Amino acid sequence: MAPMPSNLPVAIRTPLRQLVTPALLVLMPQLEHNEAAMRSLVRGRGANLRPHAKAHKSGGFTRWLLEQSNGEITGMCTQTVGETEAIVSLGGCKDVLLTNEVATDTAAARLASLAAAHPAATVGVLVDHRLQVEMLARAAATAKAKLRVLVEVDAGQDRCGVRADSPEVLSLVRAIEAEPVLDWGGLHVYHGGIQHVRAPSDRLAAVTAGPGEAARTALRSLSEHKLKPQVVTGGGTGTLMEDLQVGTHNELQPGSYLFMDGDYARNEDLRADGRFFQSLFLHATVISLDESAGKRVLDAGSKACDLVCGPPLATSIDDPALAEALRDVTYASGGDEHGVLRGVPPGVLPLGSTVQLVPSHCDPTVNLYDYMVGVRNGLVEHVWTIDARGY
Amino acid sequence: MAPMPSNLPVAIRTPLRQLVTPALLVLMPQLEHNEAAMRSLVRGRGANLRPHAKAHKSGGFTRWLLEQSNGEITGMCTQTVGETEAIVSLGGCKDVLLTNEVATDTAAARLASLAAAHPAATVGVLVDHRLQVEMLARAAATAKAKLRVLVEVDAGQDRCGVRADSPEVLSLVRAIEAEPVLDWGGLHVYHGGIQHVRAPSDRLAAVTAGPGEAARTALRSLSEHKLKPQVVTGGGTGTLMEDLQVGTHNELQPGSYLFMDGDYARNEDLRADGRFFQSLFLHATVISLDESAGKRVLDAGSKACDLVCGPPLATSIDDPALAEALRDVTYASGGDEHGVLRGVPPGVLPLGSTVQLVPSHCDPTVNLYDYMVGVRNGLVEHVWTIDARGY
Repeated sequence: MAPMPSNLPVAIRTPLRQLVTPALLVLMPQLEHNEAAMRSLVRGRGANLRPHAKAHKSGGFTRWLLEQSNGEITGMCTQTVGETEAIVSLGGCKDVLLTNEVATDTAAARLASLAAAHPAATVGVLVDHRLQVEMLARAAATAKAKLRVLVEVDAGQDRCGVRADSPEVLSLVRAIEAEPVLDWGGLHVYHGGIQHVRAPSDRLAAVTAGPGEAARTALRSLSEHKLKPQVVTGGGTGTLMEDLQVGTHNELQPGSYLFMDGDYARNEDLRADGRFFQSLFLHATVISLDESAGKRVLDAGSKACDLVCGPPLATSIDDPALAEALRDVTYASGGDEHGVLRGVPPGVLPLGSTVQLVPSHCDPTVNLYDYMVGVRNGLVEHVWTIDARGY
Repeated sequence: MAPMPSNLPVAIRTPLRQLVTPALLVLMPQLEHNEAAMRSLVRGRGANLRPHAKAHKSGGFTRWLLEQSNGEITGMCTQTVGETEAIVSLGGCKDVLLTNEVATDTAAARLASLAAAHPAATVGVLVDHRLQVEMLARAAATAKAKLRVLVEVDAGQDRCGVRADSPEVLSLVRAIEAEPVLDWGGLHVYHGGIQHVRAPSDRLAAVTAGPGEAARTALRSLSEHKLKPQVVTGGGTGTLMEDLQVGTHNELQPGSYLFMDGDYARNEDLRADGRFFQSLFLHATVISLDESAGKRVLDAGSKACDLVCGPPLATSIDDPALAEALRDVTYASGGDEHGVLRGVPPGVLPLGSTVQLVPSHCDPTVNLYDYMVGVRNGLVEHVWTIDARGY
């Protein structure tokens, strides 16, 4: 193997067959297609694109994305304080929105320190309670920084957020505006649960009744007090077309579109029309087998692939005949470090051979790895460390 | 906060309330009890104790364990090549058994290089196919090292391993013995699925019919050829008492006993008789709440806690009244970064407060973190990096 630069776990131009498995692969042509396709879909439709970094959790990948977009993407979302630090400090992103609440002085201080250390960057965060506003104001004052604060409105997911029709929306906006170290950034209205509604018509109904109605209700009550948010943000890869159609949001937050995953591919339109392609795969090795039983044991179990959204599909990224032979093969976890394929035809996948898995949910799967490799023509082209996996 | 030494993510003596959440806690008194209790249970029962490092994946924790045992524990198990490297190189363990197959020259070369770099250490691994023996022999010869090789016999789990009554058992032993760079270490006979059989009587039947019968069958066929393995190894925390009773194994491999987990606690005897105590907890913060609905949103979702074996239990490690108030509270994932508690009484768990979760399965939960902290009297006493999380 070529000597490795000391700062990379895998050398650029390493052949696929030399990778230690299990490994996380991203196919560059598919990734590039997805990246450009999303910008093209959103362009000129009245909504800004703010990709969600919780999909990749990587400073290096952020740099790639910002460069690739030729300046068309400027802001990004994060879901944890650690992601926020990585995307700004390592990724060079100048406009980040943590689409979650923080509720301790420690967490607020980390955000404020980040903003202070990067005065050219805008650091935003959500609130749904008066105490969070106070904590953020204290932290920003101490760090001599400004924080951007958005009010989260519950879009029907019953997770975080104040109810759209409650007086809390107005009172939180007033509380933010009363703090000189905080800027009111607008409203965050997102529903994760409806991203996976399969039929486009059902999804349109869900967006209309969920985030659409919640945003309208909150905007109406604010407008009675002459308040109009700059930004109404939310949405994701699953509801993107419906978010654009409903039109309440002027900022969209898709993340998974870059990688896709098995579960999004089950949405009727997302892959069927070639809009986005699967780019993220797990690369695994057959470590044991029983040919007569059609069984192959892989070195990729529940520790290698998030299984909460269902088992991965087995396929081949470079051998169409193998992919076809694996069409009816099933995967089951055989423990944390074993994945068991059943229904494998004789002679297919010999001991020591590799196979690729399509994870059902990309975000928590990426979280299991220290790095991912971008692959083109069977060679490693990029190595992106997953800086903000964990916390 | 006290200044952090540059090599630790958390300073020793940090108070619990200053930890960044979600965090992985190990309560030292419970850990120490479990560690001593296991040695005491196994001592003088005709079986050697080889704790499994897949529970903690940590070189530093390995050092703690070896020191704590006063020389009574000398060997350990691992489940991946990366764990094997960490436990030998960072943990100083001189006798390691990778209880899994490897099936590529790359993986075999890593094991052989490890053995070559640590000539005082014994590095063992399993085989269930002739090709694996050949790969290991090639790698050991190249590295000028010796590897210890055990034959895995299927104990009924239908994962890896050759059938106990097949001629493969003998032929693999002969193949290993024919290679001068390999030592035949014995038989590995383990069944992961029966670790969680709830009733001790059912578990005894499962051990007798599974690993017990498989070991007897394989031993019988080997003895016809005057072959007797030094070691028959297997077993785990769940079946420990039954493994001792059945008596086919002279080496046991429990790992979870040090931490325990929600699922093992559901085995009827394991916690009921005070044999082992829960020592591993997730430390999480309430980031959002709806008092009137009994809802608290934690910063610990499916990315903070393996959910494959079921949701965690909410409790308090230092407030018995709070633990009692949380007895009927349920946890559900609200996404990768959100955990939702429901049924929380009014006034309990205010915004920004912390709560502890008991994960259902410790191994893959530990895998989600970069480090765990050992806590005594509310202060951090140990910081163990989870060196071999990932691969």
